Amino acid sequence: MSVQLLEKHRATLDGALNAIHTRGYWSAYNEMPSPKTYGETAAEDGKQAFDAHLGRQFALNQPGLTGWLGGEQSPYGIELNVQYPVCDHEALIAAGQQAMTGWQKAGSEGRTGICLEILDRLNKQSFELAHSVMMTTGQGWMMAFQAGAPHAQDRGLEAVAYAYREMKFVPGETTWEKPQGKNPPLVMKKHFELVGHGVGVVVGCGTFPTWNTYPGLFAALATGNAVIVKPHSNAILPAAITVRTIRTVLAENGIDPNLVTLCVADKRETTQKLVTHPAVKSIDFTGGNVFGQWLIDNCRQARVYAELAGVNNIVIDSTDAYKPMLRNLAFTLSLYSGQMCTTSQAIFVPAGGIETEDGHKSYDDVCADLARAVSGFLSKPEVALAVLGAVQSADTLKRINEADSGALGKVILASTKLDNPDFPKSEVRTPVLLACDAADEKAYMEERFGPISFIVKVADTAAAIALSERIIATHGALTAGIYSTKADVLDAMTAATMRSKVALSINLTGGVFVNQSAAYSDYHGTGGNPAANASYADAAFVANRFCVVQRRYHV
Amino acid sequence: MSVQLLEKHRATLDGALNAIHTRGYWSAYNEMPSPKTYGETAAEDGKQAFDAHLGRQFALNQPGLTGWLGGEQSPYGIELNVQYPVCDHEALIAAGQQAMTGWQKAGSEGRTGICLEILDRLNKQSFELAHSVMMTTGQGWMMAFQAGAPHAQDRGLEAVAYAYREMKFVPGETTWEKPQGKNPPLVMKKHFELVGHGVGVVVGCGTFPTWNTYPGLFAALATGNAVIVKPHSNAILPAAITVRTIRTVLAENGIDPNLVTLCVADKRETTQKLVTHPAVKSIDFTGGNVFGQWLIDNCRQARVYAELAGVNNIVIDSTDAYKPMLRNLAFTLSLYSGQMCTTSQAIFVPAGGIETEDGHKSYDDVCADLARAVSGFLSKPEVALAVLGAVQSADTLKRINEADSGALGKVILASTKLDNPDFPKSEVRTPVLLACDAADEKAYMEERFGPISFIVKVADTAAAIALSERIIATHGALTAGIYSTKADVLDAMTAATMRSKVALSINLTGGVFVNQSAAYSDYHGTGGNPAANASYADAAFVANRFCVVQRRYHV
Repeated sequence: MSVQLLEKHRATLDGALNAIHTRGYWSAYNEMPSPKTYGETAAEDGKQAFDAHLGRQFALNQPGLTGWLGGEQSPYGIELNVQYPVCDHEALIAAGQQAMTGWQKAGSEGRTGICLEILDRLNKQSFELAHSVMMTTGQGWMMAFQAGAPHAQDRGLEAVAYAYREMKFVPGETTWEKPQGKNPPLVMKKHFELVGHGVGVVVGCGTFPTWNTYPGLFAALATGNAVIVKPHSNAILPAAITVRTIRTVLAENGIDPNLVTLCVADKRETTQKLVTHPAVKSIDFTGGNVFGQWLIDNCRQARVYAELAGVNNIVIDSTDAYKPMLRNLAFTLSLYSGQMCTTSQAIFVPAGGIETEDGHKSYDDVCADLARAVSGFLSKPEVALAVLGAVQSADTLKRINEADSGALGKVILASTKLDNPDFPKSEVRTPVLLACDAADEKAYMEERFGPISFIVKVADTAAAIALSERIIATHGALTAGIYSTKADVLDAMTAATMRSKVALSINLTGGVFVNQSAAYSDYHGTGGNPAANASYADAAFVANRFCVVQRRYHV
Repeated sequence: MSVQLLEKHRATLDGALNAIHTRGYWSAYNEMPSPKTYGETAAEDGKQAFDAHLGRQFALNQPGLTGWLGGEQSPYGIELNVQYPVCDHEALIAAGQQAMTGWQKAGSEGRTGICLEILDRLNKQSFELAHSVMMTTGQGWMMAFQAGAPHAQDRGLEAVAYAYREMKFVPGETTWEKPQGKNPPLVMKKHFELVGHGVGVVVGCGTFPTWNTYPGLFAALATGNAVIVKPHSNAILPAAITVRTIRTVLAENGIDPNLVTLCVADKRETTQKLVTHPAVKSIDFTGGNVFGQWLIDNCRQARVYAELAGVNNIVIDSTDAYKPMLRNLAFTLSLYSGQMCTTSQAIFVPAGGIETEDGHKSYDDVCADLARAVSGFLSKPEVALAVLGAVQSADTLKRINEADSGALGKVILASTKLDNPDFPKSEVRTPVLLACDAADEKAYMEERFGPISFIVKVADTAAAIALSERIIATHGALTAGIYSTKADVLDAMTAATMRSKVALSINLTGGVFVNQSAAYSDYHGTGGNPAANASYADAAFVANRFCVVQRRYHV
């Protein structure tokens, strides 16, 4: 049955396999919430499905139930009041281990078929998922739809494609025939079985509960492992909907649904016991350095794939498209109030200013013009509210207030609070821009998650490139950018990013932004600097999640 | 030029790529020391080349030279007196880092071509390498030739093939074109550069200084990293010859030879400083648990690929080829005096004995018959000396003496010292066989490296399979074996090895032995039990040694 699912979704798999090899544009799931794709009633059905969760217990029928827990606070200020099952983590682990045998026997094709079916079903729930992402994270609607549903599904499919590619390369069996000169050859039959390493735990984050969860979830699942999803305490619903759908599809296909469970932990201690359990062999984590480093230090029994903090940065040397550059940057700094792991935090500008097609611009000009570009871009409330979304956490609000106070640098553009008439209790803030000197490393050289960016005055372009390299090598970054009209500057920045191992966006002035990472084409993280020890997705992201157990005998 | 090397060796590469995919028998390098393959004068030339090293300084022209060090003690008792350059580890690391840029620019095809040329040149030195392996490790001549030269080269080539496969999958560039409805598409050019993570250190072992070193060495090298080879203090010469040849080929092809260096450390502290250096990003290690675990605990900046101790074991349930089984086991226990990481240490036999085509054999019968099979196999001195080789270390001699004393179990077959007329000072020992009860876990449940094996009395076959699984899951194993005529027993053992993640050999009675692992076909280690966290070779062994650094810009 599961192999029939592979045939059903063969075109999708082939498309993904081709896309990860060519890395051109491709997508399996329409990023536009179009009725033509999703159905005439999809928008309304999805909203109703979301509303139906509110104020209710979210049943999952998992083992080890000990109680119910909720407490998600919507950044939009609406009441969620969903209660999730709290299950004994030992029971979840034991059930996951037990389910792994049947999952292993499904084989790589069977597992891949089921993963493809799951993704297809999640895609059909895109509106429901989008509302759940929007209301738990504070993302604007369009972003919640795109990043929360089709883009996340694409990242999941990408991981499945990599897993399939690696698994398919291992033959199920072979005949080994070694010549022995004039004597008969030695002949052995050998079988090669793909076996998942064990239970995988995927620790979700509060801002991208699906996009950052699906790669690890599907990589671990496709390669034969049980998966326990441990969502962020404020973004449980998107994970719960995902887990329920997965469990449904597993059960439909004769696989023990306890292969994939949701772990809502009422105590930090429970999470720590879960991730350090000897049966847990992989952990996928997106989040801050404190818990991330704790995981790396303490979960020695597992392979930890961690996306941590970083200091994304951009060097501005010169441009022949000054206004488009400013518009592009304004969008990047504003999108989801800068609450993306890819948002630029430090923008390096030479003290002597930059050359543009509009003439020379001093450092102060650039500061003022970028501030104007941001406030101009956000001047229409409907644009501002759609782009900014709401601020996800109280910590981010605190950081905005601290930046606004001038404690971190000269305030070029203060953050303002906007009212969202649809969600009167939502916390909406515009970005704060600060000016500081390269010497003020304490200010800009640690991640200040949220809409807080620094325009850093640097001696010259060469110093800016060197500073960028040093920051990335020591503090990490997922994204770097450069604006320059000079080939030698671009070459120097390119060489610097080879050493510091970060993805570089060059002269972005149009409809692509440094903080955007497209599935199948852009590697999200390189795995080579402190911001992440893995990349979405590549062979390294999947190859170490399973092993090959062989047996051999004479024929 | 390096791409021309790829063309020169294209057939070899294609053969290896096909072999790792089909995992049938294949070899690039003749395992027989045949004059037809290696040349009429190869044997004599190789011996002379080896002799020429003795009593001399082994020049490598590396940076940071601070002195010379030797001290290898041949298990055959001959005088070696080779002196090796001691170089400041900081100088080696800095030089390696500097050389990486040119190596990166050679690209995957260039690097692969040069690696293939290196392997070809090493193959032409097979006799010289074989003598150096034999005289430093105590291996018998034929084993030293096969495992030390062609088989090691095959394992190196296997790693290169995996690296090539993963690197080639990543396109150098792409055009990303995203439709925008009625508007013109977004078009970006993207470049993807493969960048090695950093300096790799390969820590060699005293028994297989090439076979266990080449996989990590070539995996790290092919994927764009500098490599520092840190040989075992008693098996430096094979590594030094290897490094010199690599440096020669690199220089011939315009690559800075300091990309690959030999680190002979006069102090343990130097080795510790080397492996914990922030620039060191991968460590390949074969050896004991103490230093292996130290590496894993302390080298947090690097990815550690470790092959550690284990307790390899065999379950005997029944057989229809009793004598062939005993002969097969006798060879395994005798080969290189059991000084292989794949030698069986524990043989589980039901207390009630086993059924054979020769009738029932009691536990005591099996003990006595296996003892007779070993002593019979080794009764001809020329066979015994060729198979046993010499004992590599004083620690192993101590362990043999301890076992012989009866302290670990009832001695079924005592070890004897044999005289080797060609090498009067060599330490040759026959295997010691002990009988003990399953309850005597302290005796048999830790690795006792060397020709020391236990015939463990277990309640029944089911208990033996359960014990095997528990040992492998908790103490690790590279090999497991089963003898049974019953399908249900084979199925139960197969299922147990899926859970404990170990390679299983079934009913070996002919010319293949449980301790043998054939390149391209047998995975050496699974990476899934405590004996090794990686496998030679698979995608996981190479995929995390490089990252992809991309850049993108509007077209």
